[in-house]
Amino acid sequence: MTNYIEAGARFSLDSPTLVPNSAGYLWNKHMMIHMNCQGYAVAQYMNPEPKKYAHNPNMAATSFMQPEQPYFAHHPGRFFYLRDDESGELFSAPFAPIKAELDSFEFQPGLSDIKWKIKHSDLELDMTLTLSPDLAAELWHVKVRNSDSQSRKVSLVPYFPVGYMSWMNMGAHFDDELNAVVCTSITPYQKLEDYAKNKHLKDITYLASDVKPTYFETSLPRFEGQGGLHNPTGLSDKRSLSDQPSHYEMPACIMQFELDLQPGDESEYNFVFGPALDKQEIAETLDLTLSDNKAHAAADYASYIESGKGVLNISTPDKIFDQFVNNWLPRQVFYHGDTHRLTTDPQTRNYLQDGMGMAYVNHEATKQVILTSLSQQKRDGEMPDGILLTPEATLKYINQIPHTDHSVWLTLILESYINESNDWAILDERLTWHDSDDKSTVLEHMNMAMRHMCGARDERGLPYIAQGDWCDPMNMVGPKGKGVSGWLTQALSFALQSWIRLSRDVNDANELDRFQHTVDELVVIADEYLWKGDWYARGITDDGVTFGVPEDKEGRIFLNTQSWAFLANMPNALQTERMLKAVDEQLDTPYGVMLCAPAFTAMREDVGRVTQKWPGSGENGSVYNHAAAFYAASMYHINQSDRAFSTLRKMLADPECESFVQRGQLPLYIPNYYRGAYYQYPDTAGRSSNLFNTGTGAWFYRLVIENLFGLKGCREGLVISPQLPTEWQKARVKREFRGAILDVEYQLVSDKTQACIEVDGVVLSSNLIEDIAAGKHYSVVVNYHNGG
Amino acid sequence: MTNYIEAGARFSLDSPTLVPNSAGYLWNKHMMIHMNCQGYAVAQYMNPEPKKYAHNPNMAATSFMQPEQPYFAHHPGRFFYLRDDESGELFSAPFAPIKAELDSFEFQPGLSDIKWKIKHSDLELDMTLTLSPDLAAELWHVKVRNSDSQSRKVSLVPYFPVGYMSWMNMGAHFDDELNAVVCTSITPYQKLEDYAKNKHLKDITYLASDVKPTYFETSLPRFEGQGGLHNPTGLSDKRSLSDQPSHYEMPACIMQFELDLQPGDESEYNFVFGPALDKQEIAETLDLTLSDNKAHAAADYASYIESGKGVLNISTPDKIFDQFVNNWLPRQVFYHGDTHRLTTDPQTRNYLQDGMGMAYVNHEATKQVILTSLSQQKRDGEMPDGILLTPEATLKYINQIPHTDHSVWLTLILESYINESNDWAILDERLTWHDSDDKSTVLEHMNMAMRHMCGARDERGLPYIAQGDWCDPMNMVGPKGKGVSGWLTQALSFALQSWIRLSRDVNDANELDRFQHTVDELVVIADEYLWKGDWYARGITDDGVTFGVPEDKEGRIFLNTQSWAFLANMPNALQTERMLKAVDEQLDTPYGVMLCAPAFTAMREDVGRVTQKWPGSGENGSVYNHAAAFYAASMYHINQSDRAFSTLRKMLADPECESFVQRGQLPLYIPNYYRGAYYQYPDTAGRSSNLFNTGTGAWFYRLVIENLFGLKGCREGLVISPQLPTEWQKARVKREFRGAILDVEYQLVSDKTQACIEVDGVVLSSNLIEDIAAGKHYSVVVNYHNGG
Repeated sequence: MTNYIEAGARFSLDSPTLVPNSAGYLWNKHMMIHMNCQGYAVAQYMNPEPKKYAHNPNMAATSFMQPEQPYFAHHPGRFFYLRDDESGELFSAPFAPIKAELDSFEFQPGLSDIKWKIKHSDLELDMTLTLSPDLAAELWHVKVRNSDSQSRKVSLVPYFPVGYMSWMNMGAHFDDELNAVVCTSITPYQKLEDYAKNKHLKDITYLASDVKPTYFETSLPRFEGQGGLHNPTGLSDKRSLSDQPSHYEMPACIMQFELDLQPGDESEYNFVFGPALDKQEIAETLDLTLSDNKAHAAADYASYIESGKGVLNISTPDKIFDQFVNNWLPRQVFYHGDTHRLTTDPQTRNYLQDGMGMAYVNHEATKQVILTSLSQQKRDGEMPDGILLTPEATLKYINQIPHTDHSVWLTLILESYINESNDWAILDERLTWHDSDDKSTVLEHMNMAMRHMCGARDERGLPYIAQGDWCDPMNMVGPKGKGVSGWLTQALSFALQSWIRLSRDVNDANELDRFQHTVDELVVIADEYLWKGDWYARGITDDGVTFGVPEDKEGRIFLNTQSWAFLANMPNALQTERMLKAVDEQLDTPYGVMLCAPAFTAMREDVGRVTQKWPGSGENGSVYNHAAAFYAASMYHINQSDRAFSTLRKMLADPECESFVQRGQLPLYIPNYYRGAYYQYPDTAGRSSNLFNTGTGAWFYRLVIENLFGLKGCREGLVISPQLPTEWQKARVKREFRGAILDVEYQLVSDKTQACIEVDGVVLSSNLIEDIAAGKHYSVVVNYHNGG
Repeated sequence: MTNYIEAGARFSLDSPTLVPNSAGYLWNKHMMIHMNCQGYAVAQYMNPEPKKYAHNPNMAATSFMQPEQPYFAHHPGRFFYLRDDESGELFSAPFAPIKAELDSFEFQPGLSDIKWKIKHSDLELDMTLTLSPDLAAELWHVKVRNSDSQSRKVSLVPYFPVGYMSWMNMGAHFDDELNAVVCTSITPYQKLEDYAKNKHLKDITYLASDVKPTYFETSLPRFEGQGGLHNPTGLSDKRSLSDQPSHYEMPACIMQFELDLQPGDESEYNFVFGPALDKQEIAETLDLTLSDNKAHAAADYASYIESGKGVLNISTPDKIFDQFVNNWLPRQVFYHGDTHRLTTDPQTRNYLQDGMGMAYVNHEATKQVILTSLSQQKRDGEMPDGILLTPEATLKYINQIPHTDHSVWLTLILESYINESNDWAILDERLTWHDSDDKSTVLEHMNMAMRHMCGARDERGLPYIAQGDWCDPMNMVGPKGKGVSGWLTQALSFALQSWIRLSRDVNDANELDRFQHTVDELVVIADEYLWKGDWYARGITDDGVTFGVPEDKEGRIFLNTQSWAFLANMPNALQTERMLKAVDEQLDTPYGVMLCAPAFTAMREDVGRVTQKWPGSGENGSVYNHAAAFYAASMYHINQSDRAFSTLRKMLADPECESFVQRGQLPLYIPNYYRGAYYQYPDTAGRSSNLFNTGTGAWFYRLVIENLFGLKGCREGLVISPQLPTEWQKARVKREFRGAILDVEYQLVSDKTQACIEVDGVVLSSNLIEDIAAGKHYSVVVNYHNGG
């Protein structure tokens, strides 16, 4: 029935009604498009802030990317109506707006393009969307074929709605020179100073073709009439489109190509759809993307995507997992690291996470992230809530809310970067500060970051939470400046341990001692104030209420304060046992481990809930994959490799599992969450956010490379310490590392004494491959034993 | 075919496809609903700022009321599906979403309710919407009748979409106690301080019924399925609704009533739809609006509307005009004056205009407006850009942009108020200032306002424009503090003349002399700097460019600088003749006089275009009715009574005129504009904004009372000086005035010597009726002669 995997990492889906939210996504540094299998689209481009070029049918709010995007009849999309001009019969491709039962439907989101193959009424339609590496423009290729035994007269009608652009100057016309429908508008403004900014915005949206349309339409109301999008008046009764410009109306890019096809005949069309500042820009874009250059543009885009293919290629007993790790995972990591989620003020935490992932794709980008971040650090060591990437950028949305955890992530990115690059010299790079032109080394910046975190603690030694920290930031725990974070108690310890480990050979001994002293202190503090019998509490409010405790009716247990306790080496064996039991019983679900449980169903004002994660919002009690990834990390950390793998694996919806299809999620990316509240709302549990913006990918990739396959860089070379799931017998991995290529074959051995590592036929005396030479090729055999 | 006028001021429309945008509106102090004949609705309520309780299907921007509201399949609305449960046949009432050709359709927007009568498939559906005077709740009454000769099993399915409420806590359930679908959400916030505010918002939307539904549905996706709103999956195949709550989904209030109707049988239902803070509030609202109280609520609402019926009842040869002036015009004036357009920071100009209209409805409200406005005046005489009506209100949108004309409107409202009330004592009321606790009299406040305007002029004596003034405010004429306004040159003179006239007996003689001196000066200044051969220019920019002049390609002539020149007694006879010719040739159209011509098609940066009125926006080159009303005023002022009446009359679309139906506008209200650019875009010219927020009504009403019928109050009584259109032979008017009732009969006499006024059979020696006694009834005959 459904053929998930094909060569070339393309998935296929045979009916949009089975998984109506299934979607692929494409991006370059200028734009991003999330293309739903039915034809609906969510796209934005940078100009300089994220903007849309195809709009909702009303004045939509400017917001961060929203999860669980609702689709509706007039949602922006890219649609092709096909009409039999003799019978008047009409259907639309890929599926919406008519949503006819098609004879055949294939949706194939690929790595660098998205394809549909539609057959209906003896007509075949092939549609491909790709991008160029450099332009904010969608490149569409459409082929219509007559598979009937008789000749057919048909109209192909691309309908690209542009929506409510603005209440200023909205209109559209056909430009003969460009062979394009051009929709114009002025971004609304009221303040004079905004006019100067708005002048540079690309207020035009256009659809150009390489074939002259027989007719065109520019107005949505005229096209739709009273018939509705499922039966547009403009296409009724064998009518032709109006060939009229439109003024003050909701514009749409609509063309009509009249075809007269003999049996077997095909017609091909190329379209370009996107935003532009002026006619000149459209002309230049068309020049680069149509006629002679069109194959070039697509090939360039494929190589751009290929450039982010990562450092790992695996072959294991789990083919779905292979496919995901080899193709989709590094692609998701690349998207984040190369575009910074198309924001100009990424949250510091996100920016560092995304940069960390790039260590395994293109570590030069990681270095840039580290240096950019630290140069925006304050002289007292505090990191800002967001990193500004352009001169005009400002801190927006959640970045205006004080969070206390940003420096934690510095040690993690630095660790990944040095693991991969061995670039210890970065610690000596000299950078200025946000509020001082003094130059200090990265080492000093890092020490200051750690010192600042160590200092931001109360008299008990517990770190303040202010209005939030990571992943389940609660805005009412500490706004008065007294509330503390259980998680940050552990995260601070973890960050310090990581920094001590990394900088041991280069840092000042007294400094290291002081950090170690804090680490030692934090274990005791956590036990005294946070350990509640079976797990660690989440925090203590301004008013002294400890929460995330067994007595709580909602939010009784939080995942992060267990995961990070493990990572910070806090619990003893007995504690570990109890914590694992609690997680299994209260947080684990078929869709992964939940962020907290029971989910909050109402505001508890003495335990402030999150700004963006109120009861019922996407992240409350959800399987929040970024947190789940840290849970997996903690399970590797305590050698629970099956628990770890199962956690990772659940992030990819299981194709054999009925619920997978129900939840409408193909594993093209890890969404930021699956709905949780599993014991409260079982019907909606597992529903994907359909949002691929998440730090999860970076962590997932790092865990696969460094923990699952245990191929981690160190100063001397590569350490090999795999933690494969016990059900696997063997696996093969190709690992690129510091310019060398290692072919690694894993073989489970039943006898611990047989465990050994061979490199090019020579058995190593340790698990370290030293002196790896760039350009060389190594054949490695890892005979591993489960449990040793 | 179409029966526009019935008794009780109800209009009827026999097909929604003829005039798809036809709509009625209802309001009380807490809410407003604009109900389109097809079932779409735009509604808002105060909480404390304007909010919506039925939302768009996406996250919509918060904005001021938008004109030319686009409707689309998922636009909020109030719909009733009717399904034959035996055949499965489905249609929807009033028309959308299915938009079936109905056997019969009547839309009857009334003064205090909106009704539909639908017949289709041998079923009859009567629907009525009304409000209560005090609650933010829609009261719906629906009756289904079987007009078939056999018994019928049908389902009545009210479908009230609630849309995308929030990304926090969106869900819905059926509450058995309330017998209501209750949709819940939390207004999204990120800043902690917003939580405290948001707690008081009515985040619930509910639909309650007085009849137990057989089934219910709470989720739009589940109801609609892949079928679409024109064919919802939830109603396909004789299915029943799911009876399920919904979580994280777009909620909708949907009920299903299964009916088994014998021939002639009827079933009746009452529904209440609206926002609420909590269950308690819903219960209280239902208690006041359902069961025993439902007739009461509707009757109370009718008396609320009746309380705004105004002071005039007319009978003229123009029945459409009568109907409008007797019913819809005072109602529109009342809406504005009683609700302040449902804003908390009305623009000062709008607030004063709306208050002025109330002088003819309930002059106590006018007094309040005057006192509230002047108590927000600065000590130096300057008026703010908006008037704050609640403690939490802030200046928003256009009120953040400095405009220079607000004080002009003070004299106009004061004049109307005193004309009607004879309350000269108001001038002695003592008020504080925005920035001073000193109390000063209204007279002093007014003098300061005039002095401030007189002072805000350049070395030539021309008033600065800053970033805008009235009606076509241009934000780039004077931002550097040098540009000046031609219109304000005239408006200042007009305001001063009005103030001198009003305060002559009570003001300081030197003060009056100074004002008169400025008036005299302004005529000379206008002639020197603004007169351009055939008309007055609109202004001079910061850089010295005079615009609105014959050499300009766009914006060559502006209406306001002609109208107000007349009002300010500036042009001589020769100038008047040329100006009238220019207006006739360049600005007049079948839809009224345009604001400027030719409309701007592109930004001209040296002649800054408007903030909210950019080329192509609603008001650029439009028939802006508020400006047209002042043109009419100016025509009365120079005794061009036919020009004046024709201008007023064009504001009501002509029911005999083909274009009237085409433009989808019944004269239930004067919209703020009709699209202009008549010579540039003839196809869209005349299209209504469908927005009834405008100062036009107040002026229109004043002109009808004081100029057309010439029934204006003065200190001694009532002056009678009609300016009826020459084609009228007679008219009758009932005028309420200072507690008395005057029945006035106008009769055209052919001989000037026959002209006279009789009161209760006695011929007056002048045109002044003195000593009018409250409670008395006067019979007045006005024998008038055209041309003297």
